[in-house]
Amino acid sequence: MNAPDLLLLRTAPKAPRTLRWTGAALELLDQTQLPGTVTYRRCTTLEDVRDAIVTLQVRGAPAIGLAAAWGLVLGMAEQDALPAERWGEALEAAAARLRSARPTAVNLAWALGKMLAAVDEQNLSGRAGREALAVHAAFLQEDDERVCATLGAYGASVIADGARILTHCNAGALAVAAWGTATAPMYHLQAQGRRFKVYADETRPVLQGARLTAFELSQAGIDVTLITDSMAAHLMSQREIDLVMVGTDRVTRNGDVVNKIGTLSVALAAKHFGVPFWVACPLSTYDPATLTGQDVPIEERAPEEVTHLGGQRVAAITQVRNPAFDVTPADLVTGGIITEAGIARPPVGDALAALLRP
Amino acid sequence: MNAPDLLLLRTAPKAPRTLRWTGAALELLDQTQLPGTVTYRRCTTLEDVRDAIVTLQVRGAPAIGLAAAWGLVLGMAEQDALPAERWGEALEAAAARLRSARPTAVNLAWALGKMLAAVDEQNLSGRAGREALAVHAAFLQEDDERVCATLGAYGASVIADGARILTHCNAGALAVAAWGTATAPMYHLQAQGRRFKVYADETRPVLQGARLTAFELSQAGIDVTLITDSMAAHLMSQREIDLVMVGTDRVTRNGDVVNKIGTLSVALAAKHFGVPFWVACPLSTYDPATLTGQDVPIEERAPEEVTHLGGQRVAAITQVRNPAFDVTPADLVTGGIITEAGIARPPVGDALAALLRP
Repeated sequence: MNAPDLLLLRTAPKAPRTLRWTGAALELLDQTQLPGTVTYRRCTTLEDVRDAIVTLQVRGAPAIGLAAAWGLVLGMAEQDALPAERWGEALEAAAARLRSARPTAVNLAWALGKMLAAVDEQNLSGRAGREALAVHAAFLQEDDERVCATLGAYGASVIADGARILTHCNAGALAVAAWGTATAPMYHLQAQGRRFKVYADETRPVLQGARLTAFELSQAGIDVTLITDSMAAHLMSQREIDLVMVGTDRVTRNGDVVNKIGTLSVALAAKHFGVPFWVACPLSTYDPATLTGQDVPIEERAPEEVTHLGGQRVAAITQVRNPAFDVTPADLVTGGIITEAGIARPPVGDALAALLRP
Repeated sequence: MNAPDLLLLRTAPKAPRTLRWTGAALELLDQTQLPGTVTYRRCTTLEDVRDAIVTLQVRGAPAIGLAAAWGLVLGMAEQDALPAERWGEALEAAAARLRSARPTAVNLAWALGKMLAAVDEQNLSGRAGREALAVHAAFLQEDDERVCATLGAYGASVIADGARILTHCNAGALAVAAWGTATAPMYHLQAQGRRFKVYADETRPVLQGARLTAFELSQAGIDVTLITDSMAAHLMSQREIDLVMVGTDRVTRNGDVVNKIGTLSVALAAKHFGVPFWVACPLSTYDPATLTGQDVPIEERAPEEVTHLGGQRVAAITQVRNPAFDVTPADLVTGGIITEAGIARPPVGDALAALLRP
């Protein structure tokens, strides 16, 4: 394993930026308009940012957390003159207001907690407090970017020239500050001028692959071909896929991978046809407190995601199942799990635990 | 193996009828209006029938063949007075006109060939010829129905009480005269008052599962739940599927099964989780002249099927792959292949060849 090319880490990928802080406003790529229209929403107040989170204009756990961090900075503007205690109360109220945008989003609460801790530890308030918040929001954003860039460099190092890569859902730059997770190795390959090709599963029911992954990769000038989820196994049977690269929402202690519904299908086909199956994620995604994937409750979402498309009904019936995630058992992760701390090779559970040790 | 319950063979399933011959007209269920509207097109001329075929109001290889057979009967109405030679010429012209509706549809040409042979062998023309055509069209329709009903009875005999059955695409009553192939065992179970439950894959890109299978089973009062193709493996991992039952377009000599794209994915998941994988088809679907599934060219269809839904664009890009079929290798057909001549158990290629022998 070569160390990541640090020069490349400073090269921003060509994908559209999800968030841009201008010094006075947070500009958010409006993901509800994708892929039809590329437009940025300029948020100058906390309520602007909160509304963007509520209406899903910004999505992806890390991106939501970062948007909220900047939302807190905006919320504390023109509060510099408050006395320390009132300033602290205003900060707590602002954080609570942002947290209520999506009460179940772990990363949103986590990012806001980090922001509050940053001023709390130094007992800051007023202008000094506001400036510390802005510094910390920038730090969180840069940290997210650095983690993705680093794991992308590791990921690129395991991909042969000319590879045909299959990905599922959107573990892309649009969900984070930059680079993405599963897409980070692709942006690295591109920056290195390497030849490769991507197949993107459309990812029913919500079509994140068709709408987001296909969008960001094509915008970046990467050769990307869209397929339905049902075509992945066929392409593997025809030896048209060299490796699978996906993201994940959570990896359990034993190395089971919880990810978007349909990942398990892809992993089973990859195993059958001898196609290496890789997962790319920040090490923070590893959750050793949960033993196996079977211990993770699988959320069932609204039936309309399956029965309707773009407001239009496509199905004859309303009785549907709609699990949002599935569990890919650790032994199907035949390539490994790529993190910013290095690559966990099979058995991936043990290898991740080793990477976590100081 | 019990012999099929012959009493049940005379019970029509509760699914909507695809074709109805009234004596003066052919009524066709307009499948382009499904699932929104259940309406029959009344065809009183050959051109009516041809138009229904061209516009896909009738679909499914057997149903198209039967519609064309009745179209020929309608085309020869009011031609009784023609002298024998002119009558024969008119018949040929009518058949050619119907054949041109879908020049690549094997079953359409096959059915018309059978119709011509029926009058040719007996050297019939005029009124006697027309009556022979009507008798033969009815025979073809009844034969199709008998074959499906019989294989359905065989299929029902291998399904345990309370079974949860997964199916892919529409190998249903809507594609044939009645019963369907993969659905025929379900209609038999229903007629027997047995308990069971069906999961229907939506079957991207054309959504035959969501639009047709879900429609016909729910219309018949069968408990059917719709899922996306990407959810089948997850449900199997949760032990919520007891068996898979699909149709097929062609079975090659070695027992490979060519069927709608996505079937291979389902078969791989079924193999992994120990779920029996069954195929239901007329014995005529067995093609011993083709050695393996790899010898069957896989049609790639228009990109718009993937990028658009109901005329609405859903994808960010236009570069897509759209193979219409895939090949499930014989060793993944772990249940067997159910035909009107009996059940071919693994190794299914050898067993089908044995069923074919007189």
